[in-house]
Amino acid sequence: MDSLIKKIAQTGNPIVPGLDPMLEYIPQSFKADYFAKHGNTPRAAALAILDYNKALIDALADIVPAVKPQCAYYERFGWEGVRTLEETISYAKSAGLYVITDGKRNDIGSTMSAYADAHLGQVDINGTTFTPFGADALTVNGYLGSDCIEPCLNTGKDIFVLCKTSNPSSGELQDLSLEGKPLYAAMGDYCERWGEKTRGEFGYSTVGAVVGATYPKQLAQLRERLPHTFFLVPGYGAQGGAASDIAGAFDKDGRGAIVNSSRAILCAWQKAGTQDFAGAAREEAIAMGESLKKAI
Amino acid sequence: MDSLIKKIAQTGNPIVPGLDPMLEYIPQSFKADYFAKHGNTPRAAALAILDYNKALIDALADIVPAVKPQCAYYERFGWEGVRTLEETISYAKSAGLYVITDGKRNDIGSTMSAYADAHLGQVDINGTTFTPFGADALTVNGYLGSDCIEPCLNTGKDIFVLCKTSNPSSGELQDLSLEGKPLYAAMGDYCERWGEKTRGEFGYSTVGAVVGATYPKQLAQLRERLPHTFFLVPGYGAQGGAASDIAGAFDKDGRGAIVNSSRAILCAWQKAGTQDFAGAAREEAIAMGESLKKAI
Repeated sequence: MDSLIKKIAQTGNPIVPGLDPMLEYIPQSFKADYFAKHGNTPRAAALAILDYNKALIDALADIVPAVKPQCAYYERFGWEGVRTLEETISYAKSAGLYVITDGKRNDIGSTMSAYADAHLGQVDINGTTFTPFGADALTVNGYLGSDCIEPCLNTGKDIFVLCKTSNPSSGELQDLSLEGKPLYAAMGDYCERWGEKTRGEFGYSTVGAVVGATYPKQLAQLRERLPHTFFLVPGYGAQGGAASDIAGAFDKDGRGAIVNSSRAILCAWQKAGTQDFAGAAREEAIAMGESLKKAI
Repeated sequence: MDSLIKKIAQTGNPIVPGLDPMLEYIPQSFKADYFAKHGNTPRAAALAILDYNKALIDALADIVPAVKPQCAYYERFGWEGVRTLEETISYAKSAGLYVITDGKRNDIGSTMSAYADAHLGQVDINGTTFTPFGADALTVNGYLGSDCIEPCLNTGKDIFVLCKTSNPSSGELQDLSLEGKPLYAAMGDYCERWGEKTRGEFGYSTVGAVVGATYPKQLAQLRERLPHTFFLVPGYGAQGGAASDIAGAFDKDGRGAIVNSSRAILCAWQKAGTQDFAGAAREEAIAMGESLKKAI
């Protein structure tokens, strides 16, 4: 987690914008040409989204530490959407950003190794090395236990394991008591254990946790409970989490979390009444970072 | 689940072969030309795998009800691998097979809708409808609760929710007591509830469950407990589950489950000492079905 923590310090902004491209988030003036040229096809959508993402990355790369593309919004456009995901990650990396692929992947050991290779590692093709998606971190669902985590640890990259998610129904299972503690806390305790041998220079391991901004009490409790587990905190902005709700995610040094916002940043141009979506996203990401820093 | 249940009855074989293509599963004589032509590239791998899958589908389509491609093995080869996934699903569908995309996807509601559209549904591109992957069913991880399930229900297709997985560490969380019952049983009870309004002509809902062959006791208990939840049972063959272990997955009419085997079918040619991987897979899938039917 060291490289992420250093990038947060450099930019002074613990915000990670989500790259969750819905076509309605892209101004008509920007996307019209792609559909005029390629018709109403997944290719047109995928090419428009790629250039949209590149414009966002250009506008954001010097003021945020990281971006978080969400796989689902690319898979919606089939393999051409997934090509855009791959090229977006590559473009963001070359702009110096830390990239979190939000895929919430999970499977048994041998298959999880394939996911780890795909998203964080490399693949051997008859002795030639290929880097498929090449992110710095992947979100992971830990329901299957250690078998699902170890292949990721072997890559040396970072993961964020779902603990307490930001959605309204997250409590249906996660809040129930699992042999004396909430399931989300049990998952958090596993994060500490899985990461034990991977702690870096700031005390945080390569095994982070996803804890939603929409549950501020649990967020603060988990920060106390999991001193070596870095948090990815979704739910800020459009999902309802406020800056004051998130303060508890950070440690006494102001480290320990990166806060995600997607719609509020991507759709800032609509609120601002401009077509300059990239400029509006930049202003919103700066403003969100400032609000957060005041709250911490 | 009706269409799957009917296909099982038609073929008389409750086996779903996994399409989990590792390059080492493909005979050298079959794959050599692709690498000679395209080099040691993901394109060569993706094209070889597509033709390999097609040969398997041709050999299997009249004797099994379904196939189950596992996303990780396609994502390993980047977007070209994912194109092969998309084309494999399409080819299997046109051969009359029911297709289970094994992606174990999960997310909050709005993002889960994107996954549901991607894998089971359709996407609107400026009024033109596009079908991205078009499977009949998707495996899903239910840790996030109802928000993660409802978007799938809305597609009218089937899902299989992870309950008791086949891997060695599945018990670390799944076997612990969640307010008086094992977590896997709590997840199973949710499957019954989520599927309540979707029951078909055989009494099974569109919400199935994944329950591993490697835990026969829990498998039989869950069959009793979840009378409207159809099971996808992995772990038969290479992972160690025997036909007798699986008998408990079926109801008194011999319905209620489809049993997955991947490596044992895909690698049957190696054991048989032949290069005819498709013929060997066919024989193995028939033999596995026969063993199962005897055990039921």
